[in-house]
Amino acid sequence: MKLHEFLPPVSQAVGCVGPNDWVVLSTRVRLARNLRSNLFPDRAKKNDRIRVCSIIRKEVEALPQMAGGFAESMESLSAVEKQTLVERHLISREHAMRGAGSALVLSKDTSLSVMINEEDHLRMQSLKPGMQLQEAWVAIDEVDTALSKTLDFAFSDEFGYLTACPTNVGTGIRVSAMLHLPGLVLAEQINRVIQAANELGLAVRGLYGEGTEALGNLFQVSNQRTLGQTEVEIIERVGKVVNNIIENEKNARGLLLQNNPKMVYNHIGRAYGILANAHSISSKETMNLLSLFRLGFDLGFFPGVQRSFIDELFMVTQPAHLQARFAGKLSAEERDIRRADMLREAFRNVERPSMPSDPTSSLDKT
Amino acid sequence: MKLHEFLPPVSQAVGCVGPNDWVVLSTRVRLARNLRSNLFPDRAKKNDRIRVCSIIRKEVEALPQMAGGFAESMESLSAVEKQTLVERHLISREHAMRGAGSALVLSKDTSLSVMINEEDHLRMQSLKPGMQLQEAWVAIDEVDTALSKTLDFAFSDEFGYLTACPTNVGTGIRVSAMLHLPGLVLAEQINRVIQAANELGLAVRGLYGEGTEALGNLFQVSNQRTLGQTEVEIIERVGKVVNNIIENEKNARGLLLQNNPKMVYNHIGRAYGILANAHSISSKETMNLLSLFRLGFDLGFFPGVQRSFIDELFMVTQPAHLQARFAGKLSAEERDIRRADMLREAFRNVERPSMPSDPTSSLDKT
Repeated sequence: MKLHEFLPPVSQAVGCVGPNDWVVLSTRVRLARNLRSNLFPDRAKKNDRIRVCSIIRKEVEALPQMAGGFAESMESLSAVEKQTLVERHLISREHAMRGAGSALVLSKDTSLSVMINEEDHLRMQSLKPGMQLQEAWVAIDEVDTALSKTLDFAFSDEFGYLTACPTNVGTGIRVSAMLHLPGLVLAEQINRVIQAANELGLAVRGLYGEGTEALGNLFQVSNQRTLGQTEVEIIERVGKVVNNIIENEKNARGLLLQNNPKMVYNHIGRAYGILANAHSISSKETMNLLSLFRLGFDLGFFPGVQRSFIDELFMVTQPAHLQARFAGKLSAEERDIRRADMLREAFRNVERPSMPSDPTSSLDKT
Repeated sequence: MKLHEFLPPVSQAVGCVGPNDWVVLSTRVRLARNLRSNLFPDRAKKNDRIRVCSIIRKEVEALPQMAGGFAESMESLSAVEKQTLVERHLISREHAMRGAGSALVLSKDTSLSVMINEEDHLRMQSLKPGMQLQEAWVAIDEVDTALSKTLDFAFSDEFGYLTACPTNVGTGIRVSAMLHLPGLVLAEQINRVIQAANELGLAVRGLYGEGTEALGNLFQVSNQRTLGQTEVEIIERVGKVVNNIIENEKNARGLLLQNNPKMVYNHIGRAYGILANAHSISSKETMNLLSLFRLGFDLGFFPGVQRSFIDELFMVTQPAHLQARFAGKLSAEERDIRRADMLREAFRNVERPSMPSDPTSSLDKT
């Protein structure tokens, strides 16, 4: 089956609805594992990588969680398919650059994803909508437990799970949440919040992880350390910080609406006006305007809209998703035109926002 | 009567409908005259200015063309009133700075306006909608002829009419047209057209004359010389150049729609989206977006709209008009909010544009 026949629409795949989904788009837990007595992928020869990949892939595909899923060697995927998987957060940008000897296995709803021979032999992740760190942890822990019965993971009594990069050694866990923080950005408090998170040992990154821009006011918060704490402690710590950021975002929105509602209305109104009427629009501008539209939705300005409508648009307007929808290679200019066509069509039935004359009334809707 | 009780809405005053009004917003002819044996205003003492002003005002007010009109000393007008007159193009920015000893007389429909003791003792203008240079000339020539029977104008057989500034000596005529040239601006041909007009002895300026920016793609074209040609020759020359620019604008729009329709649609769609949904907007941005909206109207994208609706908005969204509508002094920030409120209200019933899939079909509508 081709990837695009398999991949369900965002709203029917991982889903968009979860606890505190007005801030937390998704939560993820990923574990790094390696097979004992086998060189790490970047040290191994091609034949060894192919052999290890084949052993692992067989076991992963055999998991009951992966029934009806998707499995493919990275060399069999096109550039657009790989980029689509990156946009869905199902593989890393690093894994998209791999070829022979690397593979990917996805569960039917794409909530479980296993990268084989990325930086480590195994990178398995569980992705959940909204704030569901605990649930994501349970799901990936089950996969890990099942695989540990058939695969011999490299483990040291002193260091814990061994990984290619020392930053992953120990639990091999990375716990992250994708947060939508337009209030903190508009209130110019985002840098203070990022700094505070850093001081608590968390990394805050852009939409696509390390070294990427915070497009669409989306920020990925994750643990930096994997050693010296249990998985449960790490999850609790990240959860605490995320809950704190949620409170901060709520307060920022409240203060903005109290002190400068017109500024907020202006951003949201213009974003809506452009999304609904542009005939050419870049991916970056789209993300930033959809972010403001999502804020307007949170504040109750678009009563006819579902959140899944917005989160779906966040995804399908990205370059590879757009490219995949239209046959033939599109230039950046053509993509901008198709993206605008898609948005105008999507917004055809979205009524102009009606902002309350009493701004505080929209606060309760958050 | 207060100025704001007198001033009719733009569409009912000078009007918006005239030949080639899709490019030519208005045409104007003004004549500079001075009384013999009296110092020019900038040389005269205050008492002399008051005396001259009183003599001229009496004769101007007595003209049948001025019946039911408006007459006021400049010192009796508030700053907002003066600025409103500048925005209507009924007085110059220079005249707005005058006080005691200077005055203004307007005809009932504001198509005739006489400034007393601006730079010259008399500056009389006739303002017409669309391309009506000849009609504007006839109207102001009648005023001049009538006044010359009761006032003794300074005239030299060698130089013609004498004026304070040598650039006005001779006929004392300035013939100008206010042109809307979004096509030439979008096609990046405007500088070539301005240069060609300059070489033919015409000045091209921004919305408010000398030294002002070309806001809203509006350009004022006028003769530079007043000496050595008859009034009729000057009017013919300006008319020729304006007709040539109209052709250039038409061609530019045609080529844009053939070669890059999406760019044109994109500008117009976004302009509409912002005008209809912003909650704060500056005067400058408003002018520029209304210009694109007007282009969209010309191309038939807004079938439910009248041209007067647009030209009225061009006027009433300007700072003094806005200030006059709301009691109490508004800060720039408050004005931007009120302006956006006014625009959203005005656009409430303007449907989203529907651009043709065949762009050349909209050409005929120009």
